[in-house]
Amino acid sequence: MGNCFFSQDKNTNVRVSLPAVCFVWEIAMVVLFGIFVRYNEEADAHWGEYKKTHNITTDMENDFYYRYPSFQDVHVMIFVGFGFLMTFLKRYSFGAVGFTFLIAAFGLQWALLMQGWFHSLDYSTGKILIGIENLINADFCCGGVLIAFGALLGKVSPVQMMVVSLFGVTLYAVEEYIILNLLHCRDAGGSMVIHTFGGYYGLAISWILYRPNLNKSKHLNGSVYHSDLFAMIGTLFLWLFWPSFNSAIANHGDGQHRAAINTYISLAASVVTAVAISSMTEKRGRLDMVHIQNATLAGGVAMGASAEFMISPYGSLIVGFFCGIISTFGFKFVSPFLEKHLKLQDTCGIHNLHAVPGMLGGFISAIVAAMASESVYSKEGLIATLGLEGNYANRGAGTQGGYQAAGTCVAMVFGIVGGAIVGLILKLPIWGDPADDNCFDDEVYWEVRMSLHHQMEATTQIGNPTKDEEHFLT
Amino acid sequence: MGNCFFSQDKNTNVRVSLPAVCFVWEIAMVVLFGIFVRYNEEADAHWGEYKKTHNITTDMENDFYYRYPSFQDVHVMIFVGFGFLMTFLKRYSFGAVGFTFLIAAFGLQWALLMQGWFHSLDYSTGKILIGIENLINADFCCGGVLIAFGALLGKVSPVQMMVVSLFGVTLYAVEEYIILNLLHCRDAGGSMVIHTFGGYYGLAISWILYRPNLNKSKHLNGSVYHSDLFAMIGTLFLWLFWPSFNSAIANHGDGQHRAAINTYISLAASVVTAVAISSMTEKRGRLDMVHIQNATLAGGVAMGASAEFMISPYGSLIVGFFCGIISTFGFKFVSPFLEKHLKLQDTCGIHNLHAVPGMLGGFISAIVAAMASESVYSKEGLIATLGLEGNYANRGAGTQGGYQAAGTCVAMVFGIVGGAIVGLILKLPIWGDPADDNCFDDEVYWEVRMSLHHQMEATTQIGNPTKDEEHFLT
Amino acid sequence: MGNCFFSQDKNTNVRVSLPAVCFVWEIAMVVLFGIFVRYNEEADAHWGEYKKTHNITTDMENDFYYRYPSFQDVHVMIFVGFGFLMTFLKRYSFGAVGFTFLIAAFGLQWALLMQGWFHSLDYSTGKILIGIENLINADFCCGGVLIAFGALLGKVSPVQMMVVSLFGVTLYAVEEYIILNLLHCRDAGGSMVIHTFGGYYGLAISWILYRPNLNKSKHLNGSVYHSDLFAMIGTLFLWLFWPSFNSAIANHGDGQHRAAINTYISLAASVVTAVAISSMTEKRGRLDMVHIQNATLAGGVAMGASAEFMISPYGSLIVGFFCGIISTFGFKFVSPFLEKHLKLQDTCGIHNLHAVPGMLGGFISAIVAAMASESVYSKEGLIATLGLEGNYANRGAGTQGGYQAAGTCVAMVFGIVGGAIVGLILKLPIWGDPADDNCFDDEVYWEVRMSLHHQMEATTQIGNPTKDEEHFLT
Repeated sequence: MGNCFFSQDKNTNVRVSLPAVCFVWEIAMVVLFGIFVRYNEEADAHWGEYKKTHNITTDMENDFYYRYPSFQDVHVMIFVGFGFLMTFLKRYSFGAVGFTFLIAAFGLQWALLMQGWFHSLDYSTGKILIGIENLINADFCCGGVLIAFGALLGKVSPVQMMVVSLFGVTLYAVEEYIILNLLHCRDAGGSMVIHTFGGYYGLAISWILYRPNLNKSKHLNGSVYHSDLFAMIGTLFLWLFWPSFNSAIANHGDGQHRAAINTYISLAASVVTAVAISSMTEKRGRLDMVHIQNATLAGGVAMGASAEFMISPYGSLIVGFFCGIISTFGFKFVSPFLEKHLKLQDTCGIHNLHAVPGMLGGFISAIVAAMASESVYSKEGLIATLGLEGNYANRGAGTQGGYQAAGTCVAMVFGIVGGAIVGLILKLPIWGDPADDNCFDDEVYWEVRMSLHHQMEATTQIGNPTKDEEHFLT
Repeated sequence: MGNCFFSQDKNTNVRVSLPAVCFVWEIAMVVLFGIFVRYNEEADAHWGEYKKTHNITTDMENDFYYRYPSFQDVHVMIFVGFGFLMTFLKRYSFGAVGFTFLIAAFGLQWALLMQGWFHSLDYSTGKILIGIENLINADFCCGGVLIAFGALLGKVSPVQMMVVSLFGVTLYAVEEYIILNLLHCRDAGGSMVIHTFGGYYGLAISWILYRPNLNKSKHLNGSVYHSDLFAMIGTLFLWLFWPSFNSAIANHGDGQHRAAINTYISLAASVVTAVAISSMTEKRGRLDMVHIQNATLAGGVAMGASAEFMISPYGSLIVGFFCGIISTFGFKFVSPFLEKHLKLQDTCGIHNLHAVPGMLGGFISAIVAAMASESVYSKEGLIATLGLEGNYANRGAGTQGGYQAAGTCVAMVFGIVGGAIVGLILKLPIWGDPADDNCFDDEVYWEVRMSLHHQMEATTQIGNPTKDEEHFLT
Repeated sequence: MGNCFFSQDKNTNVRVSLPAVCFVWEIAMVVLFGIFVRYNEEADAHWGEYKKTHNITTDMENDFYYRYPSFQDVHVMIFVGFGFLMTFLKRYSFGAVGFTFLIAAFGLQWALLMQGWFHSLDYSTGKILIGIENLINADFCCGGVLIAFGALLGKVSPVQMMVVSLFGVTLYAVEEYIILNLLHCRDAGGSMVIHTFGGYYGLAISWILYRPNLNKSKHLNGSVYHSDLFAMIGTLFLWLFWPSFNSAIANHGDGQHRAAINTYISLAASVVTAVAISSMTEKRGRLDMVHIQNATLAGGVAMGASAEFMISPYGSLIVGFFCGIISTFGFKFVSPFLEKHLKLQDTCGIHNLHAVPGMLGGFISAIVAAMASESVYSKEGLIATLGLEGNYANRGAGTQGGYQAAGTCVAMVFGIVGGAIVGLILKLPIWGDPADDNCFDDEVYWEVRMSLHHQMEATTQIGNPTKDEEHFLT
């Protein structure tokens, strides 16, 4: 249908490259899993023996029961949350939800390996031993890559996104190792390792891939009524399950409990202030769906690194309060500025939802950690919450705060430098990306069955949109 | 876009009032949280010490693990369930899902405070100590307010809804205290405190705000094909997670287990009888989506107060059986009657889904409680299930039944009287509500990007609808 | 609206038959539940006493806490997953989600009874004692019936589907008893009992109900842009919660843990290979939504029977790898072949998603079971995982493998023979099914409020579609 839709100067045929990449990488996964990946002691059939030798009296102590409900919530966030949040574009909803599906399904396999080598390697056998926590971390890692996808939405081919995923997961695993293990930062909800990294990674790629004539696709770079509703499915599942996201790998007991409470409160405040700013900056006080879909989530992002801390409920409220404001301002004023003056095209505005709130979250955690005291946490609680055990037993709260700030910077650097390099790779003319006048359009990579009125509209637009029609459609 | 859409006699500009209300109330929250709210012993970093002093051997005994999965289900119900259920209107889906988001996000903060003062105050320090159960109760409280929103949908401004939320949460906390603490009723799933109160609260407000010329907006007071499908997302998540709703704060162990089973069974029966009545009352036996979206849920509402009781599986089935019938009849015959003769405009039909089934649920619980015996419950089970401990150790099952009935009446009175007062407050001409010919329209409070055909339709309708077109659209 | 839409030769009026069937069957449920169904010891108020007599120290040991989160996930899969997956048809979305709701809500009641008689009967009292595991199994049973619905979608009346459910649940309970109890197969995720049975049951019914002139409804047998997006909601919730599906009734501890991991990995591989084949077989490498919506799930189906086994992570990856390929090929080539040469009309392609992957899953489990050894499982683990206790203590792994294969064949035979018989019953001219030129249309059984443009389209299509218009719409 509609060959007239496609530009002559770019070949978007991925019939060879996409299957080739999928098969090569999936076969590599089978081989590497065969060599490296096994069940850990809680998922292995030897668990019965393990229980006896470790004096565990009940199956309930299996980590599965501590973390599985949270894992499923995170799983929904990654695939439904991210996937549907990005369906807001009027003609790129298949790409949003479909490529999210592909990216995350491939990414989580590679993440199980990469993160496994760093964190779950049994040195005596050379095997990666996986359990429920590995699944959560693999999903987290995909979250970072999907954030980057948000900046690139509609402008890249699925083959390019497979490349972004491969390198993204790799970079993620390395920066995560540096931040969590070498710097020994606390970042249960990933303000640094997920949001700061993912945000700047995507922005850097998008900056390198700058499209000077992207306004030729302007008529498709917007939403329609029902696409905005589909996006709200994504927003709500992200918002609702964010307490699970931030508490999923927190410490058992009070750690998970507190992380969930803090995130719940912070997110609630974000909604109220995002609505306030959205109304204040639009004509007649009308709300903008873009703000409701995105800035309401900023409190969850910013609470990521501090969720487990004794930030106290009003602390969480303050974080959400300001991040809702900052994020909405970002969508309203900063993103247009960046596009105009820094040549940064950021389809979903990840700068305002992930990069900045994530970075702020990292620095907030530095402050909160530095202010931690035994009187507030108890001696035991301070050690458990800040992880000041073993080699880190002598590290004080203030020092920990410094490391939290350093970790945030590491995430930024990895994102920017890594993204720039990956962006250069993606500039090679072999990946089947669309031309500037062919972006944000599902018909490039999907068999689309259009209804009569969509067809009418699309033709009208592309052909020769009158001023009035343009007004309706953008 | 389209100033012609707006009536001259009402000013719907909320650019000052909405941000002002949001900021004032959110800042109040920050201050009050700062003064009052702290973590309870299970969410505090002192949990490690608490475990030792209380001989708790495992983190699994933290209430978080008993209740968090149910909490997340309830959370989905409030935001996705209520939000999407109300998207059925063809041009008010943004308002449905967006204002639900705002109302509940603000409401839960105020609920944490109000309910905290009544139920979770540490008298030695004057602090409210919160944990997972407080989050569930705050969500429940928002549920009550959102039920009221159902009656008002499309006819009020977001500023008005913030007022409805503020007073609604306040009233809820008081009636809940009276019913659960002073009368010592059992109401795990909130037939009384949530559904009866919320239902009558919304109906009373709507009755006071009666709009004589609402039929001027008639062409928008209906659904289209895809808006009905979006609403089914809400219906299904409400229906599916209702067992969690009714069991979320039930007693550990058999209490939660039984509440989930009873609700599951009751809801299943509601679906079958709602379908039967819907088919029986329509031409050619065709089903009406309104009934499927709503009356199928009546069994969950009515089971709220009895879910924890030994009502037995067939008892649950009978409750669902009749409530599915009553609710469908309500949508088909009672709501039109109320609108015509009692001047009661109830957009979502909450009379049939919440007010009546909730009230019935309260009275059913009275009967079931009165019939409770040691032979059925065991001595220990009777005490635990009916809560006949401490000051209430001498209360018999029959007396408890009487109190259950009294509690239901308290909820009704609070709803009706409270709603009438709030309705009068909302009549002040300062809240930016729409004119009668401007209801059910997202363009009043939202920046709407319309597609070509929607634009065509809307113009056609508003301009000068012919008889045929009206037929298509209503 | 639009009487012209209905054919003269079939009476689709179900105003008597549908309510009659619903009421008769629901009243039967009330009576049978009254006679037979009670709470089991973990859901009964005697739980407090039970704990004492059985030395259970904590409520956490109640099976509710082991299985409730998984139950809720399964519940979402059945109603939202199956329901929305089938909304892909442009004008049958109400039927998809609405009849799924009806079928499953009735089916689960009958399943509680049928499965209860076989598995949960207390022989001393003649009562069925139900708990959380019964709810999961009832949902599973409905899953089997809904698979069959997939083959019949758009071609049967709701009354017929009630008949399909009644017989389907009955047949399911019998084959399940034979496979799990008499043959003592292991099938935690139901590759055999759910997918193989449900798949062949639906195919056999559809084959008997062959409609020679179904191409008269061809213009409605396809998707539009937004219906494909609604279907993705179903796909994603099925995909995401499949680890819960396969682990819901697995053994406590390592059994559930391992089942979730295996399913997670297998599904991820399916996505990548389904994308690869979809791209490879379409023009210009464009992806087909049908494949993404369906074939991505094949890894979950095929992993059902082996999920609990020590198949190892790379084994799971291999299963998903090949099933993604096989299923996509099925949609692309096998289904058209079956329709043309075997007169098998399979609306949703359940042959490729359930029948074949389910059967493969059964045989895979036979191989994996036969290869099981004490060195891999530990002695205790082998007994627990393969269930080689009591009467089966002397059964070896190889023998167990043979029984797994036999069980798969039993499921096929029950599906085919049972489906053929039910198909013949459904040929009676009393059920209100639509004529061949009236299929895939919600207006037959639903009050549909059409918007202007849908009306325009529908008229255009039905009236006299030009070649171009047909092209747009199919």
